[in-house]
Amino acid sequence: MTTIPFTKGHGTGNDFVLIADPDGELDLTPAQIAALCDRHFGIGADGVLRAVRSARIDAGAAALAEDPDAEWFMDYRNADGSIAEMCGNGIRVFTAFLLDEGLAEIPGGGTIAIGTRGGVRDVHRASVGFSVDLGRWTLDSAEPLVHVKDVPVARPGISISVPNPHVVIAVADDDELAAADLTYIPQLDPAPAEGANVELVLPGDPLVQDGVGRISMRVHERGSGETLSCGTGAAAAALATRHWAGAGAPNAWRVQVPGGTLGVRMFPVEEGEHVSLSGPADLVFSGTVEI
Amino acid sequence: MTTIPFTKGHGTGNDFVLIADPDGELDLTPAQIAALCDRHFGIGADGVLRAVRSARIDAGAAALAEDPDAEWFMDYRNADGSIAEMCGNGIRVFTAFLLDEGLAEIPGGGTIAIGTRGGVRDVHRASVGFSVDLGRWTLDSAEPLVHVKDVPVARPGISISVPNPHVVIAVADDDELAAADLTYIPQLDPAPAEGANVELVLPGDPLVQDGVGRISMRVHERGSGETLSCGTGAAAAALATRHWAGAGAPNAWRVQVPGGTLGVRMFPVEEGEHVSLSGPADLVFSGTVEI
Repeated sequence: MTTIPFTKGHGTGNDFVLIADPDGELDLTPAQIAALCDRHFGIGADGVLRAVRSARIDAGAAALAEDPDAEWFMDYRNADGSIAEMCGNGIRVFTAFLLDEGLAEIPGGGTIAIGTRGGVRDVHRASVGFSVDLGRWTLDSAEPLVHVKDVPVARPGISISVPNPHVVIAVADDDELAAADLTYIPQLDPAPAEGANVELVLPGDPLVQDGVGRISMRVHERGSGETLSCGTGAAAAALATRHWAGAGAPNAWRVQVPGGTLGVRMFPVEEGEHVSLSGPADLVFSGTVEI
Repeated sequence: MTTIPFTKGHGTGNDFVLIADPDGELDLTPAQIAALCDRHFGIGADGVLRAVRSARIDAGAAALAEDPDAEWFMDYRNADGSIAEMCGNGIRVFTAFLLDEGLAEIPGGGTIAIGTRGGVRDVHRASVGFSVDLGRWTLDSAEPLVHVKDVPVARPGISISVPNPHVVIAVADDDELAAADLTYIPQLDPAPAEGANVELVLPGDPLVQDGVGRISMRVHERGSGETLSCGTGAAAAALATRHWAGAGAPNAWRVQVPGGTLGVRMFPVEEGEHVSLSGPADLVFSGTVEI
């Protein structure tokens, strides 16, 4: 048994055990990860975020090749111990942890480059928490019919990759959003080969206020069920709503998820358009645990 | 904001935030308790156990009147912040915490008296963890018909108070135990005024091995839904099975709950019979949190 220090944090309710392991000496097994993430027998979390110097973890080589400034690598594992690529909520909490531990700094008005298995991501301070550039998004041509239990009428969804796959549908009102039973997996017809996260979006009334678009959403994440928040899902929901709204729709959105509020922004880059996600990153407690 | 140290522990998956407050200076509000127990935004637990000297909390006066040796009082709150009386799993974890913190000792072969809102309870070391005398139990005459979703045939239950109310039914085999859908509240007919916890019991095959009775169970706790473990529920399930087995049935039982294994023992006292509960008490991690 080894005693290790950890911190617990969350971004809009999506929660993580954070471990500082600068020299990459702590190679946790899937069983150890699962034990840490168990909500009754362990610490309890949606996943583990281990902070390792990119130079001290195999997966960090690609990050350093992409951006030599990506000193820190976010080794992200799901609660079942499996390897995960990127998480829009997780990387904000990860950044807050790096700063809190004194492992990194963000120069005034600048960004920090963080290595992930999904590529290097740039993070900067936002009015609340942090903002992360999620990179290029794509609109896919598939429009599967979406059946959600207790939503009376099936409707075609819009398919968006951020780059993980999402299918977004709109609901009519608060009641329809609340009535949807997401303890059942939404059925997609035709079903995407890799599955998809499904977002139910309620446009705000008015949709745009002070130049910012407003939506509420719930999300069913493939493999996890309904969650309090999904960062890329918030981005997909805002992108879909902007698409529906047509010309003149804003590029800044406020997205209400069950666990809080996220910001989504679309901005042009040389090769097309990127989408960024902003929101809170809260460190809740620190402690030690035996593994 | 105040930073307080805490420990997290569990007994067969029934989990608690433990706080040492010897002088009773930390009167947590229901909102603070609920925030601590939130599994995504807080530490996460079924409840909070605060260790206060009986002399330093109003509710401790009755405990000291009952037993002047009850130096420590277990101030037990449910996850929603409401006041709770006693918990068979919680008091073992509470005892492990008192010993771990150096706040109390159990003399060799002896017991420690702990004050609770349900009266003073005597705890002693067991082969695994600790054993607590739950006091007198009673068989009630009501035999409500119990309807459990996906258990094909409704059947009469046996009503047992430990002293909280339980209704116990037997199931036929592993499949029937596994198939029961306890996301729905079992329906009792007639329904007890105060509600009841409902236990589904599968007798072992053989029922008795080496003089010890063996059962598996699942439990639906009123107000909480299905839980990984219920200490008084395990006692009620063993008492019901002994009742069904008739003359010659043992007074020692091993009870398999979803979160682990508990021991139940019945023993005569001057005024009737007491039942005790034994099982593990695991302290998982310690840390500090701001409240």
